[in-house]
Amino acid sequence: MLPADVPALWLRDNCACPDCRDPLTGQKLFQITDLPEHLTVDAVRPLADQDGWELVWAPDGHVSRYTAAWLAQPAQPDPRTEDAKQLWGSAADLADRLPEADWTAYREDDAVRLRMLEAVARLGFCLLRDVPLRDGQVQEVARSFGYVRETNYGTQFEVRVEERPNNLAFTNVAITPHTDNPYRDPVPTLQLLHCLVNDAEGGDSGLVDGFAAAAALREGDPAAYAALTGTPVPFAFRDDTTELGAHRPLIATDPVGRVNEVRFNNRSLGTLRLPAAQTEAFYAGYRAFARLLLDPARQLDFRLNPGDCLVFDNTRLLHARTAFARGGARHLQGCYADLDHLFSTMAVLGRKEAQPC
Amino acid sequence: MLPADVPALWLRDNCACPDCRDPLTGQKLFQITDLPEHLTVDAVRPLADQDGWELVWAPDGHVSRYTAAWLAQPAQPDPRTEDAKQLWGSAADLADRLPEADWTAYREDDAVRLRMLEAVARLGFCLLRDVPLRDGQVQEVARSFGYVRETNYGTQFEVRVEERPNNLAFTNVAITPHTDNPYRDPVPTLQLLHCLVNDAEGGDSGLVDGFAAAAALREGDPAAYAALTGTPVPFAFRDDTTELGAHRPLIATDPVGRVNEVRFNNRSLGTLRLPAAQTEAFYAGYRAFARLLLDPARQLDFRLNPGDCLVFDNTRLLHARTAFARGGARHLQGCYADLDHLFSTMAVLGRKEAQPC
Repeated sequence: MLPADVPALWLRDNCACPDCRDPLTGQKLFQITDLPEHLTVDAVRPLADQDGWELVWAPDGHVSRYTAAWLAQPAQPDPRTEDAKQLWGSAADLADRLPEADWTAYREDDAVRLRMLEAVARLGFCLLRDVPLRDGQVQEVARSFGYVRETNYGTQFEVRVEERPNNLAFTNVAITPHTDNPYRDPVPTLQLLHCLVNDAEGGDSGLVDGFAAAAALREGDPAAYAALTGTPVPFAFRDDTTELGAHRPLIATDPVGRVNEVRFNNRSLGTLRLPAAQTEAFYAGYRAFARLLLDPARQLDFRLNPGDCLVFDNTRLLHARTAFARGGARHLQGCYADLDHLFSTMAVLGRKEAQPC
Repeated sequence: MLPADVPALWLRDNCACPDCRDPLTGQKLFQITDLPEHLTVDAVRPLADQDGWELVWAPDGHVSRYTAAWLAQPAQPDPRTEDAKQLWGSAADLADRLPEADWTAYREDDAVRLRMLEAVARLGFCLLRDVPLRDGQVQEVARSFGYVRETNYGTQFEVRVEERPNNLAFTNVAITPHTDNPYRDPVPTLQLLHCLVNDAEGGDSGLVDGFAAAAALREGDPAAYAALTGTPVPFAFRDDTTELGAHRPLIATDPVGRVNEVRFNNRSLGTLRLPAAQTEAFYAGYRAFARLLLDPARQLDFRLNPGDCLVFDNTRLLHARTAFARGGARHLQGCYADLDHLFSTMAVLGRKEAQPC
């Protein structure tokens, strides 16, 4: 039997007949306002060829077909929220194993590639080894699953000591855990860092799971969590040719309260101007969240060696580097990309069919 | 006198001394957790050279200086929310005038360029005239204020009738008002459409202010508004090589409830799977919002002629086109870009100084 409580308008909106959906593109051909105001089911007949139902609609006589299998499908989870992630609060949670693969295997074997992209989706990062030491290779890595996002830093940027840096990333000082470009909206959702040279004393790398820290904050200090999710914060970046700003909470949630983005960057947090009580609540929350994020126990430490390319989710993971001796040679090339196409490539690699009819 | 209720931690976090902020990059050099736990003001002295105060902090003896002018600065509004926009519910609200400029004037005169970019920020769009009829010129327009966002549709796309379209945009059918790529996250925040040929009967263009419609919905049907802002909706796009999805509400609000994004596209709304009561509430809201958005009275109608390039905010405005005769020649080139750099270019063009000290 067709379940009694299935809303009529939902059923009709999902009609897959060729009048309702373009057979070539799968796109819906009608507007929700084109459907009759008082839509009811006039008749239900079992499908002849499979388990399911053919419905005749009143008042317009339209006919729709639904299989039982399609009706029973579960909701698609949102892969961008904490619910779809494997959170890790320390290196131990990863069993001290990095999700890693050799570049040649990644390029030639779809299963390896899928495993690496799934690691970015689930853990927030993967590490590709033996990536050729070529200028611009980092963009090739990005193009293996998506598109490079160009910004004022270029299509790629050089992470090394510069004479007149516009950003502390381009010096030899330690950089505490942070997300990149919080002053940008849309923020780059992926970052890639490809190590070409690392002969420096120091200059090690670290990653922190911001979603895990946000969950810990919600658990341990609900007032702090509420202050951070509820307060848009101005982030700012400014140099001679650029002036970027974004107003976003440190912890962003979707409409049903699931964490889907963390922004944390002491260097570019701008000036909050709110009534005193709200300011104090925000700063108490900010300090509590920072204590969690900057706790060395949360940080996965490793060293990027020449040929290593780190791919990570900039909406979730914070990254850091230790200081290094000014004379030491260290050169990474980085670029930004976006998660949407990484997920698309994952889906196409792992394609399975599940259509309404 | 220094106002009594200014939170100490806020003041200290905004210290602009060279130990706290890098003089070259303006970036903050300390972490919030580096500041003493029980920070108090030990002494306040008036500044010698201007209206303001020098503070000595306890327990660490750090000295900070703040001008009265900096303290009195108002909060920076978030330019991406409805509060910063001039909403228009009909062409009449625009006094039937399009924000437009000649391409040569736009390129050569900073004031004209600033006026056009401000129109995009404030009204959601501008129209550039006499843009050279060159292949790829639309990307030149994007580069005049920012960066092209490459997607599966390329760095640019051709809007004309195709033999095997993967999207109804590339046919001659009417396209009702919609936002582009709602199945993408991050969504392209700007779209550009450059008309090269329009000899077709039909093929006219329309724009609708989605923020104005959202505000009208909130006013007229609060339950519908609550259902839409509170329900993440799966949007989906799929072809042979791509499979994109995003779970986003039709009306997105920031943490303090201001509208900052509208997504509306009947073609790519996927299958919502929620309990019956929530599904019914969503569909009632969806129909109510669609009625507002598709009301011809809300639509600004115009015709793109060869040389016209429309630049519009894809997080706010819906765009539409009427059907055209299949034999008629119509060819637009489009590309995506992002608002962050449009705002940066605006800020740099209109730069004024306002630093804490």
